[in-house]
Amino acid sequence: MLTGIKMAVLGGDARMVEVISHALDLDASVYLIGFEDLEINMADAVKTNLTPDILRDLDALILPVTGMGDDWTIVSKYSARPITLSDDHFANLSKRCKIFTGIARTVLNETCRRHGLKLVKLMELDEVAILNSIPSAEGAIQMAMENTDFTIHGSEIAVLGFGRCGITLARMCAGIGAKVKVGARKESDLARIVEMGFQAFPLSQISYELQQTDIVFNTVPAQILTSEVLSRMKKSCVIIDIASSPGGTDFRFAEKRGIKALLAPSLPGIVAPKTAGQIIAKTICRLVLDHA
Amino acid sequence: MLTGIKMAVLGGDARMVEVISHALDLDASVYLIGFEDLEINMADAVKTNLTPDILRDLDALILPVTGMGDDWTIVSKYSARPITLSDDHFANLSKRCKIFTGIARTVLNETCRRHGLKLVKLMELDEVAILNSIPSAEGAIQMAMENTDFTIHGSEIAVLGFGRCGITLARMCAGIGAKVKVGARKESDLARIVEMGFQAFPLSQISYELQQTDIVFNTVPAQILTSEVLSRMKKSCVIIDIASSPGGTDFRFAEKRGIKALLAPSLPGIVAPKTAGQIIAKTICRLVLDHA
Amino acid sequence: MLTGIKMAVLGGDARMVEVISHALDLDASVYLIGFEDLEINMADAVKTNLTPDILRDLDALILPVTGMGDDWTIVSKYSARPITLSDDHFANLSKRCKIFTGIARTVLNETCRRHGLKLVKLMELDEVAILNSIPSAEGAIQMAMENTDFTIHGSEIAVLGFGRCGITLARMCAGIGAKVKVGARKESDLARIVEMGFQAFPLSQISYELQQTDIVFNTVPAQILTSEVLSRMKKSCVIIDIASSPGGTDFRFAEKRGIKALLAPSLPGIVAPKTAGQIIAKTICRLVLDHA
Amino acid sequence: MLTGIKMAVLGGDARMVEVISHALDLDASVYLIGFEDLEINMADAVKTNLTPDILRDLDALILPVTGMGDDWTIVSKYSARPITLSDDHFANLSKRCKIFTGIARTVLNETCRRHGLKLVKLMELDEVAILNSIPSAEGAIQMAMENTDFTIHGSEIAVLGFGRCGITLARMCAGIGAKVKVGARKESDLARIVEMGFQAFPLSQISYELQQTDIVFNTVPAQILTSEVLSRMKKSCVIIDIASSPGGTDFRFAEKRGIKALLAPSLPGIVAPKTAGQIIAKTICRLVLDHA
Ligand SMILES: NC(=O)c1ccc[n+]([C@@H]2O[C@H](COP(=O)([O-])OP(=O)(O)OC[C@H]3O[C@@H](n4cnc5c(N)ncnc54)[C@H](OP(=O)(O)O)[C@@H]3O)[C@@H](O)[C@H]2O)c1
Ligand SMILES: NC(=O)c1ccc[n+]([C@@H]2O[C@H](COP(=O)([O-])OP(=O)(O)OC[C@H]3O[C@@H](n4cnc5c(N)ncnc54)[C@H](OP(=O)(O)O)[C@@H]3O)[C@@H](O)[C@H]2O)c1
Ligand SMILES: NC(=O)c1ccc[n+]([C@@H]2O[C@H](COP(=O)([O-])OP(=O)(O)OC[C@H]3O[C@@H](n4cnc5c(N)ncnc54)[C@H](OP(=O)(O)O)[C@@H]3O)[C@@H](O)[C@H]2O)c1
Ligand SMILES: NC(=O)c1ccc[n+]([C@@H]2O[C@H](COP(=O)([O-])OP(=O)(O)OC[C@H]3O[C@@H](n4cnc5c(N)ncnc54)[C@H](OP(=O)(O)O)[C@@H]3O)[C@@H](O)[C@H]2O)c1
Repeated sequence: MLTGIKMAVLGGDARMVEVISHALDLDASVYLIGFEDLEINMADAVKTNLTPDILRDLDALILPVTGMGDDWTIVSKYSARPITLSDDHFANLSKRCKIFTGIARTVLNETCRRHGLKLVKLMELDEVAILNSIPSAEGAIQMAMENTDFTIHGSEIAVLGFGRCGITLARMCAGIGAKVKVGARKESDLARIVEMGFQAFPLSQISYELQQTDIVFNTVPAQILTSEVLSRMKKSCVIIDIASSPGGTDFRFAEKRGIKALLAPSLPGIVAPKTAGQIIAKTICRLVLDHA
Repeated sequence: MLTGIKMAVLGGDARMVEVISHALDLDASVYLIGFEDLEINMADAVKTNLTPDILRDLDALILPVTGMGDDWTIVSKYSARPITLSDDHFANLSKRCKIFTGIARTVLNETCRRHGLKLVKLMELDEVAILNSIPSAEGAIQMAMENTDFTIHGSEIAVLGFGRCGITLARMCAGIGAKVKVGARKESDLARIVEMGFQAFPLSQISYELQQTDIVFNTVPAQILTSEVLSRMKKSCVIIDIASSPGGTDFRFAEKRGIKALLAPSLPGIVAPKTAGQIIAKTICRLVLDHA
Repeated sequence: MLTGIKMAVLGGDARMVEVISHALDLDASVYLIGFEDLEINMADAVKTNLTPDILRDLDALILPVTGMGDDWTIVSKYSARPITLSDDHFANLSKRCKIFTGIARTVLNETCRRHGLKLVKLMELDEVAILNSIPSAEGAIQMAMENTDFTIHGSEIAVLGFGRCGITLARMCAGIGAKVKVGARKESDLARIVEMGFQAFPLSQISYELQQTDIVFNTVPAQILTSEVLSRMKKSCVIIDIASSPGGTDFRFAEKRGIKALLAPSLPGIVAPKTAGQIIAKTICRLVLDHA
Repeated sequence: MLTGIKMAVLGGDARMVEVISHALDLDASVYLIGFEDLEINMADAVKTNLTPDILRDLDALILPVTGMGDDWTIVSKYSARPITLSDDHFANLSKRCKIFTGIARTVLNETCRRHGLKLVKLMELDEVAILNSIPSAEGAIQMAMENTDFTIHGSEIAVLGFGRCGITLARMCAGIGAKVKVGARKESDLARIVEMGFQAFPLSQISYELQQTDIVFNTVPAQILTSEVLSRMKKSCVIIDIASSPGGTDFRFAEKRGIKALLAPSLPGIVAPKTAGQIIAKTICRLVLDHA
């Protein structure tokens, strides 16, 4: 339980509603800033402004997944105007207050460092990345379903990379009934791929291995689907590239060759904001609790 | 191989293109009727009309999945006008010619009976229904993904019915990572549900069992999601009803209660026409071959 | 609950202890006949003899899985001497009393028929056969593990037959990580085999399909592993034949060729008597309850 | 291919036969030392002694999985007497020669270091440990099957630790049909456990979580199954402890409480020497090749 704990949530999207609701379930006191348009009827949730009084008392300050812009603004789906922070706001925070954000840009990093404030970048936590791989993988599979005229079941599917997202994608595709091969560069990854029942190949042999593939899911944030690789793939192959922008595909060449290749950014918040919000909510509450 | 076999394909949708292509791969001679708008560059495929000469020589006459209307017309996606058959056409067919259709309405049934022609209703074949359960299940899962803000993984999913579609749906949902319970009325089905690792419940207890469910897939073609059952379900639950029209849901009450309930007809042809076409193609060619 | 229900258990093996214990849990009154050596400290379980008084009052008479011999004797693991029944015993039973047995030989069948008594042959019930396929399959896999110097994981495994046991065996072997192919003769079975992610082959092609197989599990009660098939298999292949005696293997030829082939009878009672007993226990109690 | 490569294999067990056979398949020249009793009819395999000439020319010297004793002896299953090495043998090796062993004791480590020789400890390689987890897990499951009177399917199974062996064990048990919970201490492990569909619990809650467990597989090499934990477990629970000796169980207390607890050392070489040998064989040949 978070009884007695004071948290402020500053803007964000549907995921933050899960954070608010989970924190309230655990009996925290929650201040909502930038939620004018959110209809919520929960006791202990107070819509308010960022006054020095509130800031001084906080145990946790929760920023959106996208964090604070380098122009000190924070975007909220539930407010007409962005929230603007200032150095003063941070100065007012108590040293025991933890600041949570998805990712952190320069100014946020700098400011927290300068004020000696603990900044938790949720998207960098391995556990969050693993749990987020679930909505990411489902979103990618949904995109594949929507962009093919054949089933996942029975298809030859290649997953590139066997990190947090690659493992989940491979497991789910096989669970549906696809023939899954996975490319990785580490011998230990190739061993685990075999253990889990997928076909393993070293990424060095990628251009040979993708020739019969129907769907490629890329998770490697480096251009590995080069023109050379693409030129040997089937024209009917569909590529879902979830690696962080600009992805791992030579999109220009893919288009030229007539291969449908889609860059798929920020899937969790788009396809399953509720699940994505719960992941964040549980992690924040656990971390607040751990050190409370 | 189907060398020497003569087949005519009469209209239809994208699935028929797979039939044509598979038959040609097996070296059959294929006449295309009602495919003016289809661009196809395959030798041995002849766009033509239904002349008595052609009909007399046929080993197989292939109608669309939807069959022939009781007004003797056949719809083709690849032709501006429908094809109109007549009793004469059937009279011209040789007795060894097999007629393939997905489903058969009264007039088609009657006419074949009268002329002593063998009519194969593909959608009634158990093997076709089982293979078709694959695109059906994937289509239903895609709909569930598109209509929820949470993931399939980790959700409480109920599958109603454990026939051809129910088995496939349960297996795929569990393969993605859902917590799957399945309702059936036969003790032997309940035993197999347990063996396959799902939670089993008798359909008689449906209103008790669905109270915590996040997604319901219905495959039972009888109204089992009654207002009484619906009234005890979570409002956030999503129902994907794939049972043949009118489905198994009291849609009126579902809407009143604010439960999203979707009737999902004809999924294979919509979500995966290529796979659905290959299923039909392989079965037709196998059956032609069996008795050639 | 079975409150007020009177049951008598006549001999048997460890499985019957589960029946006794489950019936007592459901509040039945249970008479134990032929259990002198069983240490049991449960109220409501009465060790006794087959007196007419007791017989007249029974709702259920439970014989061992192996039933009654044609010499009217019943074997009990928990008694030095066998129990001997007579026609009088059956004559004393009330018409509402159900007799449960695993299998029934001639005399038992005849006697029940003559007295108009309802005889339930548990091993013939589809639900029991399906649930029993679980200990059967695990027992067969255990035998395969014990008789190979390689792992199930990664092996080429063939399952012959896709009935109650075949489905379970295929699923479990794949679950461990084997490459599983399944042979069946029905097109609908081949379709389901594909849907479940195994490789399917028609049994007509068995001698071609088994050439690279490392382990064969046979469930077909007909000699399909003929000398011709065996002669083309790898010498290192191991056959676990669970089909009812004499199995489906030409054991003489297998030995000659140096292929290890094992007939595996009555696995559930041997490898998992507790589970096997619970399956029987639940079914008996459900059937007593259904009509009570 | 290993054409032109010269390897010597010194003693060992059945696993070394796989190494010899795989190296020969890749066209290496292989000297066998300590294999008098092995019947092998392969060209290019030469049974010989450790002469300076041979040693000088070697690209790889392969010791058994158990390595060299601190008394300089090497045990061979295929020789009546152990092989005794000396410092001179190592002095004769070329600097490019790699020495492969499963594990290395003090003297072997020291000697290689002194002579500047590259020593590869196979059992410390992550890829080998992962692949070895397959026979280890199967062996542990086989032991569980042999030591229970119930099935794995349907049982409540707890796996302790989610490292190389824990992942494999959990996956296989679930594949058979068990209800699997996994205990780990890292949040990222708990996240992956959830993703893979098992129930996750922090090891700090072990004594609470094991109360209903039927089978425990321990992979944690630290005493976590303490008397306190054991005292709250079911007496019928079976523990298979595969952690390196002395395991993670208070075996004395387990016995006292009547819980069957088994320490399971060196499973791969015992239950699946062929598979275990192939794992080693492939890794050695790949490493020789990488730098050849
Ligand atoms: N679109 C979305 O919604 C979404 C959601 C989540 C993640 N992502 C993005 O997806 C990507 C994967 O995320 P993740 O969490 O799975 O990351 P991860 O755990 O770090 O996995 C990355 C994988 O790529 C491999 N890799 C990295 N660089 C490589 C290179 N130069 N050559 C070959 N292989 C390389 C890694 O192999 P090694 O282990 O050998 O380095 C690893 O297998 C990231 O770019 C992430 O930002 C996108
Ligand atoms: N939307 C689509 O794209 C699509 C695709 C394929 C199929 N379908 C439709 O989906 C439905 C299921 O197809 P299927 O191939 O799975 O059929 P199926 O194999 O016959 O399975 C039907 C299931 O429903 C149960 N059932 C039928 N009537 C019942 C009743 N009155 N009460 C309780 N249970 C009942 C059956 O149980 P018993 O075995 O005990 O009878 C069986 O478990 C059909 O209506 C079919 O037309 C739709
Ligand atoms: N050893 C044990 O502990 C143990 C335990 C359980 C069962 N069993 C025995 O194992 C066998 C299988 O049991 P089950 O419950 O799985 O039976 P089942 O459900 O009837 O399955 C039998 C399978 O064999 C096929 N088959 C039967 N006769 C055939 C033939 N002549 N040619 C080709 N295929 C044929 C059936 O195909 P169709 O559907 O096309 O007929 C079906 O796939 C039985 O003999 C049973 O007594 C042994
Ligand atoms: N019997 C056999 O045939 C056989 C075969 C293979 C391996 N083994 C033995 O089995 C054990 C596991 O092998 P492995 O390859 O799976 O090792 P591993 O990958 O290192 O996994 C060990 C697991 O134990 C956990 N762990 C270690 N120390 C712990 C502690 N003090 N408290 C809580 N958790 C702890 C680790 O968690 P962290 O990641 O948090 O450290 C990890 O989850 C080893 O002892 C190994 O020698 C035996």
